[in-house]
Amino acid sequence: MTSTATRSPAPKVILVAPQLGENIGMVARAMANFGLRELRLVKPRDGWPSDKARAAASGADWVVDEATVYGSTAEAVADLGLVLATTARPREMSKPILTAESAAVRLAERVDAGESAGILFGAERSGLDNDDVALADAIITFPTAPEFASLNLAQSVLLSGYEWFRTRGGTGGRPRAELPPLAAKADVERLFEHLEGELDAAGFLYPPEKRPVMVRNLRTIFLKAALTDQEVRSLRGVIRALSELKQRRAKPADE
Amino acid sequence: MTSTATRSPAPKVILVAPQLGENIGMVARAMANFGLRELRLVKPRDGWPSDKARAAASGADWVVDEATVYGSTAEAVADLGLVLATTARPREMSKPILTAESAAVRLAERVDAGESAGILFGAERSGLDNDDVALADAIITFPTAPEFASLNLAQSVLLSGYEWFRTRGGTGGRPRAELPPLAAKADVERLFEHLEGELDAAGFLYPPEKRPVMVRNLRTIFLKAALTDQEVRSLRGVIRALSELKQRRAKPADE
Repeated sequence: MTSTATRSPAPKVILVAPQLGENIGMVARAMANFGLRELRLVKPRDGWPSDKARAAASGADWVVDEATVYGSTAEAVADLGLVLATTARPREMSKPILTAESAAVRLAERVDAGESAGILFGAERSGLDNDDVALADAIITFPTAPEFASLNLAQSVLLSGYEWFRTRGGTGGRPRAELPPLAAKADVERLFEHLEGELDAAGFLYPPEKRPVMVRNLRTIFLKAALTDQEVRSLRGVIRALSELKQRRAKPADE
Repeated sequence: MTSTATRSPAPKVILVAPQLGENIGMVARAMANFGLRELRLVKPRDGWPSDKARAAASGADWVVDEATVYGSTAEAVADLGLVLATTARPREMSKPILTAESAAVRLAERVDAGESAGILFGAERSGLDNDDVALADAIITFPTAPEFASLNLAQSVLLSGYEWFRTRGGTGGRPRAELPPLAAKADVERLFEHLEGELDAAGFLYPPEKRPVMVRNLRTIFLKAALTDQEVRSLRGVIRALSELKQRRAKPADE
């Protein structure tokens, strides 16, 4: 079975360190149910391709066939604008927390604007670690009963897909928000590295054991801002202006 | 694991002629995720109780333990008021067709009125037959991509439960997106003035006729970030650290 019907743009599904091929296959199936097509796998534990994934996909072969493998979460999101992370529990990060419904609306705004967007899902038991979540612009949580809160991987993808498809339902009748284009994550990453390099030089990210949390909190600020390309360039200029001396002041002896 | 939290009334889930114990267990798990408790089985093919069902329930034992078995669909719905039937395709019956969302609202109206209500789900491959559907007051269909329309049994129960739980969610209203509290605008203003003061000193906001636009664009970045108090303090620290770094770089002779 092949599909041309779902060539319309949709968010990418990014599975970080998935364990069982069966679960990847069930994710592929859930994606196909709701018109999601592009599956990205970060370090799948049992390797890729996977016969078990294909069997569990129950015919959603195009999702399995076109899945791509990445060596890190950062690489898997490098070309994406809006990136959302699914987590079971709230994290101690000041990122916006969206319902699946409001997440679908945000994703649709970006996809309609011609950008690539994605949703991160963690490994079966452990979920996403904080470094993965830190790469995302916002968090999606699903409301579940407190006495049995945990959704499995394919279920989380299914609910995300369901809300996505519902948001798309009715062929584009929803009024669109006008939003400036997001910078690609790779450019945002270079901005972060520039800032953190100067802050290291300034001794600001100190002591070392607190550095990861400080870095994550700073990155969260700029991720929340949903930076455009122009804004990334402006901030690079601000960092240079604040931390570097202009040539003529640096070389008073020349004057 | 036992549960007292979900003793509140909820629709019954009725599986007609389910085949595999695993699937019944996955249904139990999906029910527990969303506070559905009472599972009714009409002629389960592989008998009941089922070790495979218990294993697949992943800890939702109370649903499995309390499941009851019926000899016919008519018996399984005999004590219920509102009964809804899930079907993959429209039937040639003049019954109302509801989305999962509107179905959840109808079910809630009845359950809130003290009535018992239920949702019928068919066998894994064949679904409900027309005689089963005929027992229902209305039909639930789930929107799915036409090229891969079929949901499996546990997925259908999951989506029904999700909509049920959402309808019940958050004391009357729909679940709201959670957003961190914003810093007061006066504190954000002081942050801006700090940043702009340093950038003026660096000659960055130049030439003067462009200064207002540059300032506005920079402020936009941080306003988009919806800063918290803590983040305002962090950014003040960043500005100080970078400015001090520059001063140290300006005095190589001191070293």
